[in-house]
Amino acid sequence: MRIALGVSYLGSAYQGWQSQPGGRTVQDQLERALATFADVPAIGTLCAGRTDAGVHGLNQVVHFDAPVERAMFSWVRGVNRYLPPDMAVQWAQEVPASFHARNSARARRYAYVLLESPVRPSVEAGRVGWVFRPLALEPMRAAARHLLGEHDFSSFRAAQCQAASPVKTLHRLEIRRRGPYWRFDFEANAFLHHMIRNIMGCLIAVGQGLKPPDWMAEVLAARRREVAAPTFAPDGLYFLGPVYDPALRLPERTPAFDWLPL
Amino acid sequence: MRIALGVSYLGSAYQGWQSQPGGRTVQDQLERALATFADVPAIGTLCAGRTDAGVHGLNQVVHFDAPVERAMFSWVRGVNRYLPPDMAVQWAQEVPASFHARNSARARRYAYVLLESPVRPSVEAGRVGWVFRPLALEPMRAAARHLLGEHDFSSFRAAQCQAASPVKTLHRLEIRRRGPYWRFDFEANAFLHHMIRNIMGCLIAVGQGLKPPDWMAEVLAARRREVAAPTFAPDGLYFLGPVYDPALRLPERTPAFDWLPL
Repeated sequence: MRIALGVSYLGSAYQGWQSQPGGRTVQDQLERALATFADVPAIGTLCAGRTDAGVHGLNQVVHFDAPVERAMFSWVRGVNRYLPPDMAVQWAQEVPASFHARNSARARRYAYVLLESPVRPSVEAGRVGWVFRPLALEPMRAAARHLLGEHDFSSFRAAQCQAASPVKTLHRLEIRRRGPYWRFDFEANAFLHHMIRNIMGCLIAVGQGLKPPDWMAEVLAARRREVAAPTFAPDGLYFLGPVYDPALRLPERTPAFDWLPL
Repeated sequence: MRIALGVSYLGSAYQGWQSQPGGRTVQDQLERALATFADVPAIGTLCAGRTDAGVHGLNQVVHFDAPVERAMFSWVRGVNRYLPPDMAVQWAQEVPASFHARNSARARRYAYVLLESPVRPSVEAGRVGWVFRPLALEPMRAAARHLLGEHDFSSFRAAQCQAASPVKTLHRLEIRRRGPYWRFDFEANAFLHHMIRNIMGCLIAVGQGLKPPDWMAEVLAARRREVAAPTFAPDGLYFLGPVYDPALRLPERTPAFDWLPL
């Protein structure tokens, strides 16, 4: 039986999603908890979107083939007993054997949360990016519009990116603020490695008036990483989750969606 | 010169505000940073409200007498260089020599944030209380009304409380929700030790239908700690800050006020 899980986690303490020999990754924690709960030597999972070190997940989706039979709610409550406090399975659902957490995803959603303040983060340290120079909304929105649609995003691609193609379709890039916090919402069919953090670096350069909005079009057209701004901090980046065929009826939200301040 | 500082901090890693021999308290961190910045052996501070272990502060106010002269913004930026990432001075302002962070406060404000979900906290662990049984709003509001005004709050007072009198005036107890999160706002002239966490235990018992709203009036009238519910977790408790004479023009908010999800 193939099972899909929705997982939320704070990425601050982990070396990203992807399993590593050291074992300090989100995937390692999850797979250890699953194996302990199921009382088997190992359970392998496959996720919808591998997050980098320091990046958080609100509705990360994984699938695995259950080696034992358990009530569906036990894959939530039972597994959570073996997970650290900064991670929790939010839901579990049986899926068809053809379901694949990564390949079945039609789109991915991320949010970046930013603190604009003369003083660095404290209560929200590790959970927000930080700028101390004020940002202007309209120039950033104008710059963002250049990125919508299908493009070669090579200028925003990390050297170590393993994607087959740099061409992706950005469906949405929305920007809003609440008091000193800014939120940037991204949706694309898929993202290149560091793509959002590289776009954030450019949006902030525009928002602070260091570059005009049309500079974003130049950066995009150049298809060269060197022309874009430096990669921005991972701290404020949240993987909201993948989007699947609605017929699968997989939850697209978890409680932590309402935890973000805006 | 007497200076007032507004400080925000996450209480999770600390044994409360009050200085202790071990030195793992918020006050110890702050006083060490002040002394390092001012390059003096020690600087003593006095705060508006001592928070317990695990309780957070958004606009804690302290005063101290500056042993050296520094530009006012340096008491923010300079001191923050020596504070851990989960603490930051938000503002610094000169105050009259008669100002006293505790004695000059006319009122204190706290918020308690609660997650109502079948699944325990993850991303927000340490920052929210948690209930898995659903809560009903109206019974809690009805129970809360019994507490407004001047009362002997002995039923909600911890054994180790050092207050001179158990009689306090509760100005405000407001309850609202956003999705799975609840927020309880308290304002009183002063609070007894554990008073809010003990009231929270009782409000939750009413919200879950274990007790009727009028039970709160009985608990209050009994003036005995044994009749109330157990002390609720510190995790979701935020000291929003003290209220002073407006003529002092001390900031009543910090950016982190907008970090709370509701």
